[in-house]
Amino acid sequence: MSNDTFVNVGKPTVKKDALPKVTGAVQYLQDLSQPHMLHGAVLRSGISRAKILSIDISKAKAAPGVRAVLTGADSEGIIFGFGKDNTPLKKDMVRCHFDEVAAVAADTEEQARAALELIEVEYEALPGVFTAADSLAEGAPVLHEGRRNMFTKYNFTVGDMDAGFAASDEIVEMDIRLPIHSPGQMAPSGCLAAWDHEGRLTVWTPNQVPFLMAKDFADAFKIPGSMVRVIQPTIGGSFGKGLDTHTLDMITVLLARETGRPVKVVNTREEELRVCTTRQPSVVHAKMGITRDGKIQAVDVDYLCDIGAYVSWGVGTPVVKLETIAALYRIPNAHMLARMAYTNNPYPGAIRGYGNPQSTFILESLLDELAERIGMDKLAIRMLNANEPDTTTPHGLDISSCGQKECLEKAAEMIGWGVERPANRGIGIAATMNVGGGARIYRSDGCGTIVRVDDFGKVSLITGTTDIGQGSETAMALIVAEELGVRVDDISVINTDTDVKPWDVGCHASRTTFIGGNSALLAAREAKGKILDFAAKLLETPADQLDARDRKVFVVADPEKSVPISTVVRKLHFRDGGSEVVGEAFYDPPNKMMDRKFYGNISVTYGFGAQAAEVEVDQDTGEVTLLKLVCVHDAGRVINPLAAVGQIEGGAVMGIGYGLTEELQFDEGRLLNTSFLDYRMPTTLEVPDIEVAFVETVDPHGPFGAKGIGEMGLVPTAAAITNAIKAATGVRMTRIPVTRERMYRALVGQGDAD
Amino acid sequence: MSNDTFVNVGKPTVKKDALPKVTGAVQYLQDLSQPHMLHGAVLRSGISRAKILSIDISKAKAAPGVRAVLTGADSEGIIFGFGKDNTPLKKDMVRCHFDEVAAVAADTEEQARAALELIEVEYEALPGVFTAADSLAEGAPVLHEGRRNMFTKYNFTVGDMDAGFAASDEIVEMDIRLPIHSPGQMAPSGCLAAWDHEGRLTVWTPNQVPFLMAKDFADAFKIPGSMVRVIQPTIGGSFGKGLDTHTLDMITVLLARETGRPVKVVNTREEELRVCTTRQPSVVHAKMGITRDGKIQAVDVDYLCDIGAYVSWGVGTPVVKLETIAALYRIPNAHMLARMAYTNNPYPGAIRGYGNPQSTFILESLLDELAERIGMDKLAIRMLNANEPDTTTPHGLDISSCGQKECLEKAAEMIGWGVERPANRGIGIAATMNVGGGARIYRSDGCGTIVRVDDFGKVSLITGTTDIGQGSETAMALIVAEELGVRVDDISVINTDTDVKPWDVGCHASRTTFIGGNSALLAAREAKGKILDFAAKLLETPADQLDARDRKVFVVADPEKSVPISTVVRKLHFRDGGSEVVGEAFYDPPNKMMDRKFYGNISVTYGFGAQAAEVEVDQDTGEVTLLKLVCVHDAGRVINPLAAVGQIEGGAVMGIGYGLTEELQFDEGRLLNTSFLDYRMPTTLEVPDIEVAFVETVDPHGPFGAKGIGEMGLVPTAAAITNAIKAATGVRMTRIPVTRERMYRALVGQGDAD
Repeated sequence: MSNDTFVNVGKPTVKKDALPKVTGAVQYLQDLSQPHMLHGAVLRSGISRAKILSIDISKAKAAPGVRAVLTGADSEGIIFGFGKDNTPLKKDMVRCHFDEVAAVAADTEEQARAALELIEVEYEALPGVFTAADSLAEGAPVLHEGRRNMFTKYNFTVGDMDAGFAASDEIVEMDIRLPIHSPGQMAPSGCLAAWDHEGRLTVWTPNQVPFLMAKDFADAFKIPGSMVRVIQPTIGGSFGKGLDTHTLDMITVLLARETGRPVKVVNTREEELRVCTTRQPSVVHAKMGITRDGKIQAVDVDYLCDIGAYVSWGVGTPVVKLETIAALYRIPNAHMLARMAYTNNPYPGAIRGYGNPQSTFILESLLDELAERIGMDKLAIRMLNANEPDTTTPHGLDISSCGQKECLEKAAEMIGWGVERPANRGIGIAATMNVGGGARIYRSDGCGTIVRVDDFGKVSLITGTTDIGQGSETAMALIVAEELGVRVDDISVINTDTDVKPWDVGCHASRTTFIGGNSALLAAREAKGKILDFAAKLLETPADQLDARDRKVFVVADPEKSVPISTVVRKLHFRDGGSEVVGEAFYDPPNKMMDRKFYGNISVTYGFGAQAAEVEVDQDTGEVTLLKLVCVHDAGRVINPLAAVGQIEGGAVMGIGYGLTEELQFDEGRLLNTSFLDYRMPTTLEVPDIEVAFVETVDPHGPFGAKGIGEMGLVPTAAAITNAIKAATGVRMTRIPVTRERMYRALVGQGDAD
Repeated sequence: MSNDTFVNVGKPTVKKDALPKVTGAVQYLQDLSQPHMLHGAVLRSGISRAKILSIDISKAKAAPGVRAVLTGADSEGIIFGFGKDNTPLKKDMVRCHFDEVAAVAADTEEQARAALELIEVEYEALPGVFTAADSLAEGAPVLHEGRRNMFTKYNFTVGDMDAGFAASDEIVEMDIRLPIHSPGQMAPSGCLAAWDHEGRLTVWTPNQVPFLMAKDFADAFKIPGSMVRVIQPTIGGSFGKGLDTHTLDMITVLLARETGRPVKVVNTREEELRVCTTRQPSVVHAKMGITRDGKIQAVDVDYLCDIGAYVSWGVGTPVVKLETIAALYRIPNAHMLARMAYTNNPYPGAIRGYGNPQSTFILESLLDELAERIGMDKLAIRMLNANEPDTTTPHGLDISSCGQKECLEKAAEMIGWGVERPANRGIGIAATMNVGGGARIYRSDGCGTIVRVDDFGKVSLITGTTDIGQGSETAMALIVAEELGVRVDDISVINTDTDVKPWDVGCHASRTTFIGGNSALLAAREAKGKILDFAAKLLETPADQLDARDRKVFVVADPEKSVPISTVVRKLHFRDGGSEVVGEAFYDPPNKMMDRKFYGNISVTYGFGAQAAEVEVDQDTGEVTLLKLVCVHDAGRVINPLAAVGQIEGGAVMGIGYGLTEELQFDEGRLLNTSFLDYRMPTTLEVPDIEVAFVETVDPHGPFGAKGIGEMGLVPTAAAITNAIKAATGVRMTRIPVTRERMYRALVGQGDAD
């Protein structure tokens, strides 16, 4: 089916939350209130590693408006976090510069913050560990009693590395350093929690995995999962940070339990930059071998990852890192070692791309260098090694649809591949592959949907999916509108309350349009079946000869013969023994959890893309100007072109920041750039026009052929930029972001030292 | 099945909203806020009938914080109300003392109310009409241009009246006057409305029929029904007043449309007493004939009803009035004429009982008198004429279960029937019959339910039903818990949002437990079927040999062999191609809309009851002291005894007020008793211990045998009291409430004149 056969799918559609957001009609966590609500604030250590010798809260307790002051003694036994190594308030030891040592609930936020100043904590400072290498060095202090500093390691091999490198004519090795990257979402995090008098807990928090989060609270507070309800307010950006249940959430719940009243705690911007989980920094040694005709033979990547003071969802990124290493191109032999080490730094978490930008940067840097070594065109080498449809990678990823080659060709065409550039200008290209059909990281990768059509033809779409701003409400609505034959405006999306919506594992891994979309499609199909069955009586035509479009059921062979859907629904309702039109479905994809060797088809299908950048480098100042960025992606059939372009553009801007400007900087675990003036995300002044195009493969598994698109836009950007820098200057930047200082030092041969 | 076989049903259960209400955790309309919300206030005429000559809003518009000032000119074309005779703001003519002539939206409520004072309206007073008789008199002013003052009349006959009275040996006639009775609910009414930028309207208002209300807004503002969403905050009492979409609601929506911002308008207590719809006052002439052995032969009732300035849902009460007249007892011949006349009084609406307390008072007064005339015991005459199970009344009500006789006998026993009382004391008895299985007043009398069981065994019960404080959340939860084999605490009831919950006609006519309960039962049964089907695999036993109880599925023949429901649900979910447990049902009862002659089985089943009162009357002061009230009711199987007792007690207190103390008093349409100091509802100091008992017929149509119970407690109370007064004093009070003054006047032979 071409897009022309669709009424809704593939039509540029303004996101349902766009107008409410720009007019301020939505309610973020910051806007929420509950009767008798108190406000909380958190005292942070301000020291990266220390013993707590004493803590005196007496003055704070006596301060005006203060209802509770809690310390580590009050959170004993409450263990949480991805590695079950964290506790809401620290009792004996602080391990990071923002570690939470006390919390206050008061009538106003001002009172709560004022009371923090009255808490006296005596510390005994201990030597901190601030790099993964130091953490793993002989004689390093034990950062968590009873645990090794190396929390875990991933050791992955596919093929035969020795044979791969033996078969290689050229081998390149690189040392690469990857920065700490903040999600930089607009809304600082916060939490509102309330316990009822029968011990039920309701938590309002802008998270991405509400059903998993409910379980986190149940586990931490040792109550049945049935006693927890998680409600998502409007989410002002999340980008992965909402996968973790954060210490702030746990503290809020604790304050609410202590006071018996609803409590809200909201980070300031500075706090948010300090505490928000980040993209993991890594020190990498990597190596790639190719034949002289350009075929990749082997890739070996050694990641040394700083996981910070506590284990978060970020510790799982090597699962994605290895996918890219083994499957971004057709790679017969690959090895990845990722060592995950505790330090006393703030802890990274999940961010958009989840390891993929790192591995893509590494592979695309290596391949670019190797192409030069053998004198091969950099586009040609990528075309040669690109993935193809209906193939299986050596470690078991089943690639169904695949437009990687078309994306590379189109990106090259759009950037003007082969056209001579003036001095100091260059172009670079990089590809991406990303899960596009779910990513089974939990026992269920499924999603449920309930679709109800009311007497006026309004459709309530109760979906398990979570909209963190990416536009899933609109994508779901488009899919249901297409299937049911109604308009997007007819659809009210209900998706914020675990007591209302069906289960969904949550918003991650670019899975929502694919998984939630398939679920919505099935539910809509069931509802449609009921409508057509009853319309068959009204139109005196068998249901299988009917279809629905633009709010009408019509006879396929004679479209003039039709009846409005709302009429069908009302007649079905307003008859003896009437009924409503409700459809329900749960879609769990046929993907697999990876096995112990990290083999297995984690996603039902995969997305692809290529980005090409043109840069100009000022040889005197080291300033890199990104002149143009083109992004061509294969996300299967595009459900909402407007949102898809937005996803790619937004991702690319994040990728530009990752490549050129964004890096959280620390002095022994203390954040130095604590505002958006110092932590530099690209603004509209620095972002060039980004050209976005799609290669619409129609995936056989996706809803109307769609695949996921949420993360891809970010993934190849930094590599495309540094490859362009190489072309412009002859300098290979192995450390990002490429700040002016780093570029200048590299140009003058001083390397990348800070 | 006896109650003992149930785990949940029939067990006294604290209402789910009880703790949140007493701890202040709930959010009434008064507590709600929306971003950028404005506050509104309404200028009322303060004159009962007048022409509006001019209105000057210039000063108000310039007042601090004022965002909009609207007048009748702004509401032209917006026609609403049960009789489509009302408009939000009046332009040329005011017809009642609280008629709305202007409205202000401002940043604060204080500013809005202050601005009202600055609006100058010039009126030309016109002579008002303040009784139905005056309204229908020759030469009365036309109150609505182009309409007759008699809005409508009901003329109902069953049998042959002439033959009936000819066959009668004794005939009694009475003139009866029935008061204006306020619902007196604790929470004053209010509304919050917001339009989004695409023209969708969301209204938060404590109403009872949200889906019908949505249609009212759509009709009034000429937008598709699909553009309206109604959300019910916690409702602080409603008692029928929430059937109408009130002028306040329409004004709020209008202010929100004008300002483009959310607007909230809340009545003060005084405003609420002035404007809240009331129980219709009536002037009645009634006549009953019996044979000398006590068989009722004919009843004829002539109602002259003051419907006030605009038509509300109250205009439909004769439908219930005639049911009682024709079917409270086995009555072969009955006639009712009810003339519904416009006046310039505030307008009554629907209140609990909806005409039934009026007709019951009339019939029970007549029958009591006739028993005396023929020298028959007053209990015996009622037993003789009482309804019986599995009968059909002359105008077509199908009585299935019927415990009327048992209720009469038990009430008599509890009050000490036949036991001699001291001087000035007396006992009286009265019966009731009320719809108990829905009441079809709309094309659908149905209700939908969705039941979802999550991984922890928590049950989301998404029900169309509306809880106005009567405890339906708990009743639905008990029914679902019983069927699914879980506990009430496992159930989260979702029931406040028309975009989320399935359709239901609304909360009226004591229908919720019966209709919503049947729907919930069917949905739970579907969910249970899915659980048992999958448990069959786990327990290696056919599903039809399994049952569920107390959170476990067990083998009926070997109950030790069991598996927790949450385990079943998780295993069903966490498998390849997993799914969730969702059940869905819509129950539309097999009742009928009445035909043009008002014949037809409007309800699937009927509830019954009898109340007996003992009073003491002070001959010197006229003070009536209610010493004891016993209430025995047949509501089929009682789902929640605690809530059922509460319903009966609450109803009886309302009935005591109706009989003894409550009456809104007016001077030419101006309310005189504008606070709860002057409008006297019985307090705990004045209410005797009320003894409640149930006759549990198990209705074949009801969920677990239940019938409706919401209204019955009120219906016979006033008649039982005046019958007791007659026994104590020999004086028949035909005008209620029996205030001290009225009683004294009657005792000294001055009649009931004010």
